[in-house]
Amino acid sequence: MAAKKPISTRAKAPTIRDVARVANVSIGTASKALNANGRLSTDTREKIKRVALEIGYRPNDLAQSLHRSKSMTVGVITNDSFGRFSFPIFEALEERLAAEGIAVFMCNATDDPARERQHLDQLLGKRIDGIVVTARRTDNRPPIGPLPVGLPVVYVFTHADEDDALSLLPDDESGAFMATQHLTALGRKRIVHITGPDRFEAVRLRIQGYRRALKDQGLNEQIHHGPWSEAWGRQAVDKLFSGEAPKPDALFCGNDQIARGVVEALRDLGIGVPRDVAVVGFDNWEVMTEAARPPITSIDMNLKALGREAGERLIAMISGQKIRGAKRMPCSLVIRKSCGASAENSSEV
Amino acid sequence: MAAKKPISTRAKAPTIRDVARVANVSIGTASKALNANGRLSTDTREKIKRVALEIGYRPNDLAQSLHRSKSMTVGVITNDSFGRFSFPIFEALEERLAAEGIAVFMCNATDDPARERQHLDQLLGKRIDGIVVTARRTDNRPPIGPLPVGLPVVYVFTHADEDDALSLLPDDESGAFMATQHLTALGRKRIVHITGPDRFEAVRLRIQGYRRALKDQGLNEQIHHGPWSEAWGRQAVDKLFSGEAPKPDALFCGNDQIARGVVEALRDLGIGVPRDVAVVGFDNWEVMTEAARPPITSIDMNLKALGREAGERLIAMISGQKIRGAKRMPCSLVIRKSCGASAENSSEV
Repeated sequence: MAAKKPISTRAKAPTIRDVARVANVSIGTASKALNANGRLSTDTREKIKRVALEIGYRPNDLAQSLHRSKSMTVGVITNDSFGRFSFPIFEALEERLAAEGIAVFMCNATDDPARERQHLDQLLGKRIDGIVVTARRTDNRPPIGPLPVGLPVVYVFTHADEDDALSLLPDDESGAFMATQHLTALGRKRIVHITGPDRFEAVRLRIQGYRRALKDQGLNEQIHHGPWSEAWGRQAVDKLFSGEAPKPDALFCGNDQIARGVVEALRDLGIGVPRDVAVVGFDNWEVMTEAARPPITSIDMNLKALGREAGERLIAMISGQKIRGAKRMPCSLVIRKSCGASAENSSEV
Repeated sequence: MAAKKPISTRAKAPTIRDVARVANVSIGTASKALNANGRLSTDTREKIKRVALEIGYRPNDLAQSLHRSKSMTVGVITNDSFGRFSFPIFEALEERLAAEGIAVFMCNATDDPARERQHLDQLLGKRIDGIVVTARRTDNRPPIGPLPVGLPVVYVFTHADEDDALSLLPDDESGAFMATQHLTALGRKRIVHITGPDRFEAVRLRIQGYRRALKDQGLNEQIHHGPWSEAWGRQAVDKLFSGEAPKPDALFCGNDQIARGVVEALRDLGIGVPRDVAVVGFDNWEVMTEAARPPITSIDMNLKALGREAGERLIAMISGQKIRGAKRMPCSLVIRKSCGASAENSSEV
């Protein structure tokens, strides 16, 4: 293995001319050998390839992409500066695309339209074959653009506000339905939903799923909105479990941070989880769910599957397929002790 | 704004030939106008530029980069599939490079040497101007390679096991010194260090800093190793505060998850934080430190500054500067209630 040399002004990369000179053949012969065309003896071909390897010659993708219709690059534009949701999506997307030899330009627009435009211009200048847009989700986002006609774009974990766009999203409604149905199946009757701000599309969809599951069983709803924080979960419990009103026997939380606060506050009050109150969260963020006492049952949005699917769709679109609309991908229920399902109503308190 | 059209087989991007045809000028004239050279009337130049904009002509970066020595792209190879540490680094790095018009290829090697090699080949084929390598830190990592002579490489948040490489790292030793000195300055005498596995270079460096600060004050050390988890923090407290041995009056934790577990376990035992025991964490991961009761004082590794610095150094190296060695960047102390500094030994319990 060649040791890395002290850094100096960058040396010129060897060209096919250098390969020809060192191998003592014409440039035409070197080209035939390296591009695997024309007629050459196997010996000559192998010798030239060996020389190319030795002097560090690499075929120039840039030159090649001028002669192909594809640059074998795509751009990802993210607005999620936090990265907790976009990173697993990106990871799976990149893995899927790398398997096709497609490299990924990653740009962080941090919710700044001017930066987004600047990134887009830069990406278009590099003749990318497609774009993936991912974002924190509050509400539908405006379509990215203007773009060259026919350039494939996939929106993932964000809902593009345009009929012709393809958006890939977790199925929040059915995830929340699954969580609530799980609680009703365990015999819980007074299931309260403690969730995030109403301006999030995901919050509104999760409420729909919660409502549908309760309706199926003829149960009443009770919904409380607050910030996405542990402190809000604790505060909600303090409110719900003081006073004379009948107490909930289950809490379905809009995310795992709220659920973590809920579990801690119930513990402080000496209320058994899941014995007295079953708790289910959303996101399956293991940092939160595994460390809680008891560990929290949660809904997993399968972000890696979402990222893989985004890669799959983008590849299909680059190959000429037309795909549009909002596609919702299934969530899963991850059972831990807080719901009482596997632990037969045993309490961890 | 042009609406995005239904997706079809990708249309050919307009060329300078199309600009010339629509503007009714020769290709030579169009080229002069678009490349801002040659002699042309302002009117003609402006007209051609307007046509180019209207038909969506974009200068081809790929063709241009063949004529320049720079591709204006760099590659980032990460092994941190979790992303909590690498994302802020990447974010600041990308921002710094974007300001210079440099686009970033992001590759996730997930600790697989074969994938790392494959990514590297792909990046080199794209004639990148430099590489940034970032990773989860256990111990020194082998240098990436083999690479073309003189290609700039910056290792960030990982220590390359090679003298000629440039590695940018947080100054773990002085961060831990700062944390411990803060506790001794508050009058704490029995300061125990609860930390992660010894195989992490960061763990060993933080122990050195802790030790140096205690030595300055003639205090005794006590170190406990375990996993990077809340459960370990709780377990360590249960051990330290049972039995007859003298109890610690301060706990310096190797990360914020351990600190969070420590604070919760002390709360369960009715031990006042910071009244009876002061707690300081490491990482300043706000998800952990802000939600804890009381909120946890912690050491911030300034990951964004680290990312910006990596961008700065890479740009300097691309311009021909030689930089090598391991550079340690300063950490900061973020004071919250768990140490008792600002809250005058008030207890949150």
